Amino acid sequence: MKPICKKEYLELKPPGFGDTVADKDRILQALKPKYGDVYISMSTLKFYYKLLRNFDWELTVTMVHNSYSWEIIIIERGNTTDKNFAYAADLGSTTVIMQLVDLNSGNILGEESIVNHQATYGADILSRIFYVKDNDDHLKEIQQCTLSNFIELMDKLYSLTGISPAECGALIIGGNTTMIHFLFGIDPWFIFSTPYTPSFNRCEFISGRDIGLPFNGLVYCFPSVANYLGGDIISGLLTTDIHKRSELALYMDIGTNGEMILGNNEVMIGVAGAAGPALEGGISKQGMRASAGAVDSVRIVNNEMIITTIQNEKPIGICGSGIVDLLAEMLLEGWIDYSGRFVPGKSERIVLREGEYAVIYAWENESGSNEELLFSQTDILNFMDTKAAANTMVAFLLDELGIVPQEVKRIYMAGAFGTYINLESAITIGLYPDLPRERFVQIGNGSLKGACMLLKDEEELLAVESIVKNINYLQLGEAKDFLSKMYAAKFLPHTDFTLYPTVMENIKHRRCKEDSISNG
Amino acid sequence: MKPICKKEYLELKPPGFGDTVADKDRILQALKPKYGDVYISMSTLKFYYKLLRNFDWELTVTMVHNSYSWEIIIIERGNTTDKNFAYAADLGSTTVIMQLVDLNSGNILGEESIVNHQATYGADILSRIFYVKDNDDHLKEIQQCTLSNFIELMDKLYSLTGISPAECGALIIGGNTTMIHFLFGIDPWFIFSTPYTPSFNRCEFISGRDIGLPFNGLVYCFPSVANYLGGDIISGLLTTDIHKRSELALYMDIGTNGEMILGNNEVMIGVAGAAGPALEGGISKQGMRASAGAVDSVRIVNNEMIITTIQNEKPIGICGSGIVDLLAEMLLEGWIDYSGRFVPGKSERIVLREGEYAVIYAWENESGSNEELLFSQTDILNFMDTKAAANTMVAFLLDELGIVPQEVKRIYMAGAFGTYINLESAITIGLYPDLPRERFVQIGNGSLKGACMLLKDEEELLAVESIVKNINYLQLGEAKDFLSKMYAAKFLPHTDFTLYPTVMENIKHRRCKEDSISNG
Repeated sequence: MKPICKKEYLELKPPGFGDTVADKDRILQALKPKYGDVYISMSTLKFYYKLLRNFDWELTVTMVHNSYSWEIIIIERGNTTDKNFAYAADLGSTTVIMQLVDLNSGNILGEESIVNHQATYGADILSRIFYVKDNDDHLKEIQQCTLSNFIELMDKLYSLTGISPAECGALIIGGNTTMIHFLFGIDPWFIFSTPYTPSFNRCEFISGRDIGLPFNGLVYCFPSVANYLGGDIISGLLTTDIHKRSELALYMDIGTNGEMILGNNEVMIGVAGAAGPALEGGISKQGMRASAGAVDSVRIVNNEMIITTIQNEKPIGICGSGIVDLLAEMLLEGWIDYSGRFVPGKSERIVLREGEYAVIYAWENESGSNEELLFSQTDILNFMDTKAAANTMVAFLLDELGIVPQEVKRIYMAGAFGTYINLESAITIGLYPDLPRERFVQIGNGSLKGACMLLKDEEELLAVESIVKNINYLQLGEAKDFLSKMYAAKFLPHTDFTLYPTVMENIKHRRCKEDSISNG
Repeated sequence: MKPICKKEYLELKPPGFGDTVADKDRILQALKPKYGDVYISMSTLKFYYKLLRNFDWELTVTMVHNSYSWEIIIIERGNTTDKNFAYAADLGSTTVIMQLVDLNSGNILGEESIVNHQATYGADILSRIFYVKDNDDHLKEIQQCTLSNFIELMDKLYSLTGISPAECGALIIGGNTTMIHFLFGIDPWFIFSTPYTPSFNRCEFISGRDIGLPFNGLVYCFPSVANYLGGDIISGLLTTDIHKRSELALYMDIGTNGEMILGNNEVMIGVAGAAGPALEGGISKQGMRASAGAVDSVRIVNNEMIITTIQNEKPIGICGSGIVDLLAEMLLEGWIDYSGRFVPGKSERIVLREGEYAVIYAWENESGSNEELLFSQTDILNFMDTKAAANTMVAFLLDELGIVPQEVKRIYMAGAFGTYINLESAITIGLYPDLPRERFVQIGNGSLKGACMLLKDEEELLAVESIVKNINYLQLGEAKDFLSKMYAAKFLPHTDFTLYPTVMENIKHRRCKEDSISNG
């Protein structure tokens, strides 16, 4: 491991009578042979200079590699090299997650997550942006609020592990462009108003204390590439091999927004766009986040629907993975057609409610009530907008490189959706391309994982730079045949069946089986 | 001129629709061809990012070269390159002086000075050090007090020139080690207690705002070499040719402390020590600083004493240059002998007062009173301690390099004392070596001048580094024959007459003339 924080134990010669080598230089000179010109800020020196004389010149310095040089950020008495800790974090607009990492072993000692405190100012990011617009007090509020996420998570990790922020040398953050603007108290309005150009895409390593965090460690935020292609994606890409290998790979992070990157070690093109709230359950009256009681998987066997729920609670709604399963199974069984429309009569569960068809995917049978849980025709069509958006983005990228899907040798699925979704179902409805299944890699929370990776290997900073340099961000709206692509994608799996050979095979197979059963 | 602050006018292409080049990068990219990787801190960006959009992308950036790269510290609308200002300052323990410099023309637009506000905590530096010892509140107080000097001087220069701190890109400070510790709020106790090792000798460029000054410009303090060899001396050395030429030169700054440097472009050795308050008038009851009414020159012609006073006011005391003249003239005329003792009868002015001999150098004849202004035998002996200290330091340096005085090709006299003293008199009493007079160069306030020089030429930073690297600081107390050197120096001009040939010639000449007059 070449962690981004290093500790070095020094046994220094105490200053002799009239020794002109200042305390600061005494330490820097000792480090020079191994670390070159090491930096210590005046504020750090101010924090420790009195203690130095009490340490008998046997001390441990914690250094962080700040892109330019090693910087001393903690000085401790005696030899504490057996303890070397730092934080990795994913600053999501909904959830903030933090890990405490042991940089000697590489182990994750603890992980905590909280709902982003910014939610007080609106569940969606746009309402937060309007809250701070032209109001510096509100901007400060939301910056404080952003910082308080980290402070609370540090507290939680302290309770969990007994390791305090004062012992941690760095905090690496993956977050989207807006989140990082909020973190530094910079109004993200420009990101959302024409010409959609951020105030900044990158910032240097900065002292935690300087931005209002209760530790002297250095904070690094992954740089962003564009307004909608943030540091969270760069962090995620770091966990993949896209930038290392010549074979083409696709990175897909589908959530409220969709971010897609296609490329290899030479060139990467990226695109981003609103995917809609569909995948977080936001499109249906009974759609919900992935929490207890959410229907998270659906199968139709012998024309009977079998569901599971999170934590096996009684069903109260349906989450993203459940929706994808539901649509895939209904398509395979012919309950809906290629345009996503219900085929009435295919099942008793397909019912007319409030003037439109809907499927009863479960019943909420609590305290005597037996309310139907419905997914309506409108819900399906809304979901297909999201699916079409994701599909169009991928088609756009393939077109730009002039390649066919088969040439994509690996597909990285990032984010919660990519983690919990049933891959087969997602391909069935055309959300992911129909490629050999072994090419798909789930990477989970790429933003958090990339942050953790950078903590453990400072040389990854070079990879970050190379990724950022190589990515060409494309405007989705500039695709010439954008609307026709979008329209073509509003089918299940797609208007061009040849793009989905295994899906078509499955449909044929399932419907034959079904027919044989009903005929048998 | 290659000033340390540069301004660059930029006419940037406004961001087009979906332009992913962030505002920050737009500016940095424009500067890159000419300035390489330019840095802008998050706090500076935060200060200006909203304005950028109002500037129609026609703007002027002010950059300071911070040793590593150019750093943007001011952004203004339109083309303001015709205005480029910065401050140079001498942070003396007694007086703080600041100049406002026009970096386009190199002209000094204004100079102001004030009594160092720290004086509230004691006229001498040691009482200030005791005030802050083990008391962080007091330390903060004295830091604030140090900063308030600069704030007041900036105000004064604003009133004088109409140029505000917000328009100034840098502040370069020459100050001794203790003063710079106070400036950063770092307890200088270690400088004064064994082993006399400072907490730091150098600090990087730091934002004015970060240390509590009302401007965003960068502050640079000349590095020190040892506890008593501070940045003020390094700054002064910069104004000389010592570090550029192979011939040996001597730098002498005599004040309350004496600092001496001997060397050339290859090696420099330095020594420092208490010179005593003699030269600022502190040894005599009637000694005083150089202000109105101070006797500042003395001549004895035909056994009659002729004096001048500062601003031609009625005499009220005697300052350093007056004392040196008085002693030199009395020695030349034989009123005192080589050991500094009065020769009674040589003049009616030599009188017995309070049990010892003294010379009446003037009468204070105001409002009927006619009080005698006296310089006593004790005053002379005290002064000779100071003279001997300075002399011993020089002898020590010459010995260390194993050279004779004649090999010193140039002598730089820094400080107020070096500026106002009569060179001939100073040589006569042995304060300066007896060398051809054309080798002596008065440099005035070297600390301030060096700061000003660095403002005008950022390449002088390299010279600063080379000076600091080349200086070998010697402990005066470690000189083997320190006491015998000191004893030998307690004669006027010296026990070794051969070291002062022209002085001996003068004495002979003057005494002969006198004899011929009295005999004639």
